Amino acid sequence: MKVAIIFGSKSDTEVMKGAATALKEFNIDYKAFVLSAHRVPEKLAEVLEQAEKNGCECIIAGAGLAAHLPGVIASHTTLPVIGVPINAAINGLDALLSIVQMPKSIPVATVGINNSYNAGMLAVQMLSLKYPDLKEALVEYRKTMKEKFINENNEGVEL
Amino acid sequence: MKVAIIFGSKSDTEVMKGAATALKEFNIDYKAFVLSAHRVPEKLAEVLEQAEKNGCECIIAGAGLAAHLPGVIASHTTLPVIGVPINAAINGLDALLSIVQMPKSIPVATVGINNSYNAGMLAVQMLSLKYPDLKEALVEYRKTMKEKFINENNEGVEL
Amino acid sequence: MKVAIIFGSKSDTEVMKGAATALKEFNIDYKAFVLSAHRVPEKLAEVLEQAEKNGCECIIAGAGLAAHLPGVIASHTTLPVIGVPINAAINGLDALLSIVQMPKSIPVATVGINNSYNAGMLAVQMLSLKYPDLKEALVEYRKTMKEKFINENNEGVEL
Amino acid sequence: MKVAIIFGSKSDTEVMKGAATALKEFNIDYKAFVLSAHRVPEKLAEVLEQAEKNGCECIIAGAGLAAHLPGVIASHTTLPVIGVPINAAINGLDALLSIVQMPKSIPVATVGINNSYNAGMLAVQMLSLKYPDLKEALVEYRKTMKEKFINENNEGVEL
Amino acid sequence: MKVAIIFGSKSDTEVMKGAATALKEFNIDYKAFVLSAHRVPEKLAEVLEQAEKNGCECIIAGAGLAAHLPGVIASHTTLPVIGVPINAAINGLDALLSIVQMPKSIPVATVGINNSYNAGMLAVQMLSLKYPDLKEALVEYRKTMKEKFINENNEGVEL
Amino acid sequence: MKVAIIFGSKSDTEVMKGAATALKEFNIDYKAFVLSAHRVPEKLAEVLEQAEKNGCECIIAGAGLAAHLPGVIASHTTLPVIGVPINAAINGLDALLSIVQMPKSIPVATVGINNSYNAGMLAVQMLSLKYPDLKEALVEYRKTMKEKFINENNEGVEL
Amino acid sequence: MKVAIIFGSKSDTEVMKGAATALKEFNIDYKAFVLSAHRVPEKLAEVLEQAEKNGCECIIAGAGLAAHLPGVIASHTTLPVIGVPINAAINGLDALLSIVQMPKSIPVATVGINNSYNAGMLAVQMLSLKYPDLKEALVEYRKTMKEKFINENNEGVEL
Amino acid sequence: MKVAIIFGSKSDTEVMKGAATALKEFNIDYKAFVLSAHRVPEKLAEVLEQAEKNGCECIIAGAGLAAHLPGVIASHTTLPVIGVPINAAINGLDALLSIVQMPKSIPVATVGINNSYNAGMLAVQMLSLKYPDLKEALVEYRKTMKEKFINENNEGVEL
Repeated sequence: MKVAIIFGSKSDTEVMKGAATALKEFNIDYKAFVLSAHRVPEKLAEVLEQAEKNGCECIIAGAGLAAHLPGVIASHTTLPVIGVPINAAINGLDALLSIVQMPKSIPVATVGINNSYNAGMLAVQMLSLKYPDLKEALVEYRKTMKEKFINENNEGVEL
Repeated sequence: MKVAIIFGSKSDTEVMKGAATALKEFNIDYKAFVLSAHRVPEKLAEVLEQAEKNGCECIIAGAGLAAHLPGVIASHTTLPVIGVPINAAINGLDALLSIVQMPKSIPVATVGINNSYNAGMLAVQMLSLKYPDLKEALVEYRKTMKEKFINENNEGVEL
Repeated sequence: MKVAIIFGSKSDTEVMKGAATALKEFNIDYKAFVLSAHRVPEKLAEVLEQAEKNGCECIIAGAGLAAHLPGVIASHTTLPVIGVPINAAINGLDALLSIVQMPKSIPVATVGINNSYNAGMLAVQMLSLKYPDLKEALVEYRKTMKEKFINENNEGVEL
Repeated sequence: MKVAIIFGSKSDTEVMKGAATALKEFNIDYKAFVLSAHRVPEKLAEVLEQAEKNGCECIIAGAGLAAHLPGVIASHTTLPVIGVPINAAINGLDALLSIVQMPKSIPVATVGINNSYNAGMLAVQMLSLKYPDLKEALVEYRKTMKEKFINENNEGVEL
Repeated sequence: MKVAIIFGSKSDTEVMKGAATALKEFNIDYKAFVLSAHRVPEKLAEVLEQAEKNGCECIIAGAGLAAHLPGVIASHTTLPVIGVPINAAINGLDALLSIVQMPKSIPVATVGINNSYNAGMLAVQMLSLKYPDLKEALVEYRKTMKEKFINENNEGVEL
Repeated sequence: MKVAIIFGSKSDTEVMKGAATALKEFNIDYKAFVLSAHRVPEKLAEVLEQAEKNGCECIIAGAGLAAHLPGVIASHTTLPVIGVPINAAINGLDALLSIVQMPKSIPVATVGINNSYNAGMLAVQMLSLKYPDLKEALVEYRKTMKEKFINENNEGVEL
Repeated sequence: MKVAIIFGSKSDTEVMKGAATALKEFNIDYKAFVLSAHRVPEKLAEVLEQAEKNGCECIIAGAGLAAHLPGVIASHTTLPVIGVPINAAINGLDALLSIVQMPKSIPVATVGINNSYNAGMLAVQMLSLKYPDLKEALVEYRKTMKEKFINENNEGVEL
Repeated sequence: MKVAIIFGSKSDTEVMKGAATALKEFNIDYKAFVLSAHRVPEKLAEVLEQAEKNGCECIIAGAGLAAHLPGVIASHTTLPVIGVPINAAINGLDALLSIVQMPKSIPVATVGINNSYNAGMLAVQMLSLKYPDLKEALVEYRKTMKEKFINENNEGVEL
């Protein structure tokens, strides 16, 4: 497993699928876990340790409300941690601020509210520093994205 | 020690003094610790365990920014945890939301932004359930507060 | 009755049920009242006085909009008051601020927006300081919660 | 006394002076009180009853933070209550929402943050319904205000 | 007509009905107008002048978005103007701020978001200063409200 | 005069200077007025009519708080109106929303908070549609801006 | 083509139709494009260059979330750019701030959230500076709007 | 150069120094540039291309207001881009939202407001995936941080 995707409740599965979608597009091995910083702190620590031993190089963590999960994970590992604020109340602003405003020296790489696909993409970009194949795939992805966008919208749009 | 006061940085000492002031007014034994959920998670767990063994019955935790400290403490203990949002950015709204919006079953008793005095008072109220002397002192405190307020403001105010 | 649950309108019944659910899990005797700080202030004062005489040790109060109820209750009693901000407008931010930003010396222990279950849990934690049985039950509850969480999520999740 | 000006702490005197300034411009008899809804609820009730007996026809109440004072006053009287949100934290948004979002049937006439002068003006407008002299003075005031504004700014401004 | 109710679009009729409901409960003569500060400024000025001639003593104005209507009305008259922020976007915060934050000397008496019933009540309170019958009716209304509230909720509520 | 710059108080002169600075850089004739939508509505209407007669083609209006001035101006003229939200409270968010959220069919072209320079630039861009000299000057301005930026920052910066 | 309407995704078509509606009412030639500042930056630059060559005099750009499109367009052209914040998250506040808070010297003329009709109207007003026919049509439009408004609402409204 | 630090104005130098400080602690080669997405888009593209050719593996970009710089950079490269929201208005919330709410497939790894040190740390963590020496240094850094924290705070704190 190269990437671990962790979130606090099965009810967040739908929102977090985007991360898996992005990783699949680049054939990156990932594994998803439902874990809670507040309910099973010891289990979380154990899974993180095990993941790192199994070659995990990046962690994606999604959480809503007082979203401590990404920050708590970041305090347990030196791997880069990507945080996905999930909208569970007040439009997700509580989760965004709880994830992004980390104190000095323990960062969480935060993406947009409910935007787990971008968390997956960011993981790909990080891994591409090490794996030249991924770098090529990323460049190709961008090229394809552009062509697709242009093809789909080339005839303009009727307003 | 009946109450542990915990916060993440010596720079928060001034804001957190109010908690001690309130506890002193009721002669409640307390001890203050600088501890971080993200930087020294193991030390935090150790201090909490020790505190509970030493008779600690309530924990006051202050934090700013992505204020995870009170919530992380609450996940380690079944003692009531009182959270003080500290204004370190965006008027303290990040800290307020990071503390108060805890998930189901792990509450943090949140007080106003920078209002550590009220955290101390809340601790006194909780302890007064068990200690009849404190209950009496609280009733007396309220009575004195009223009399003092009335005396100070009795002559009205010139506008 | 050990806990009084008070809110301003029958229409808040659904949101406030969580508090009762938590108290029932710990076999704590409670009673619920619909009372308003603005419409029946004298009745509120009377109920509070009576409740305290009947052994009430903690009050849970839920309110939306300019949510004065928890704070007004806190000014009438030295019992700990737990406030539940109810989302009736602007995502519950008006209620949250009206409850949590209490002035010096009259705190309200605030929990998350609509999160009355956590208000119930906080009441249990407060009462557990005095009642050793509750303390034990709380420790057991946490243990069971962990085990249940781990069992339910042990096989991972498909993304 | 025609108008009672009430606020919770001597430290708010400066902010509340504007209300007195406006009332003085119209020779309206007023009296100012420092009173707290949370600290001296009985005294507040007593002063309100006395004020109404002494001919008070309108109440101006200023408060910051979880600003319950205007709403609690409104629950004690059928006189119109004007609320002034005082900026004591988060730019006064907590006070604004705590004052303006009153429940159905107990309104508070809310003016701008820290804008106690407008509270005074609003009191004058309300009283002018009953007192024809005040109505005339108000019309004159507006006329003078316009003339003064035009005179002061007639020559344009250098940018 | 004692009260004019003015709002900017027929689509706001439902939200503004509460004002009429409150006035009807006190048998106060009112008339409702759809008028816009931006689209028909001259017509607005004309209606306001006519209303005042016909004995109008108070104006209730509801508006959403950049809600200028209440403030523009207040600049045309010395009658008290009550503003109702209507939720048409961002939870009505734009309307609330556009109405309540009026500059020095031209106040608008602002009530809660969408809370036109309270605007009606506030008008009744203002008019009661002049009309002793209304004062009596208000005192009776409060008494009845209390009794009704107590009767409806006397048996407690099942949680 | 090609552009009228209007704002509500001499105290806003400093903030509004940026508009004049931008217009001067393009030698555009402008005139500044202190006028209030609420205090001198008739004078405002008169100045606007006169300005248009004198060849004014664009209006820049700055205001703080419940910033009605730009919108009220827009309702009096079919010339494009540029609104500058001035930070007088809550970081200028009240002014921004009061200006930008105009109802259908009466737009105000809103620029950033306190950013009157951009209002001037926007006026230049609008006028450049009609005046080819201005168009050329704008293209030149951008070219110069780029060169200056590059020259100033070419040697990098020491961190 | 006099006006180019540009937005980032076909899913925004419905929201952006208002701009076309307004332009059609004034018989202004426009063309709509789906283009993205982040996905096809080169194509965007190309389309803008081409548009200007084809006589385009004003650009309307709509975007949601981190809405960079209007600002990026403004950096490519000296034509006036009108930005429409689209509500895709947190009530459109992210898009509003991302569009309106442009740095010094590169303004975007921002209209209300989702209010593309006003963007169209603003374009008409800008073009009317150059085209006397449009100026006349605008004056006529306002007159008709007023008459229609008065006719529709003349009989008052039943509350 | 392994890391490029880019920001829009020399006035942001102080805020952005933290990024350099973090990189220096890990002996990572970096270079800082003042560049603007809106003022010098071509120069920005050129510098980015050159940087990548020179071995740059990660980009840190800081911006305030409508902070488009990080997102525009992300659209030009497949390297991971770290965004630092700079507080230049409304507490930096405009910059935070303009950076973090990127559309699907072009992420920006966002850190806390003004927290450029964390941007540096995040860059180190990303690079450590590829460079084992950095991984070791990171583990050592955390260990030292813990020890230092414990040593500094071991004697508790006087409240």
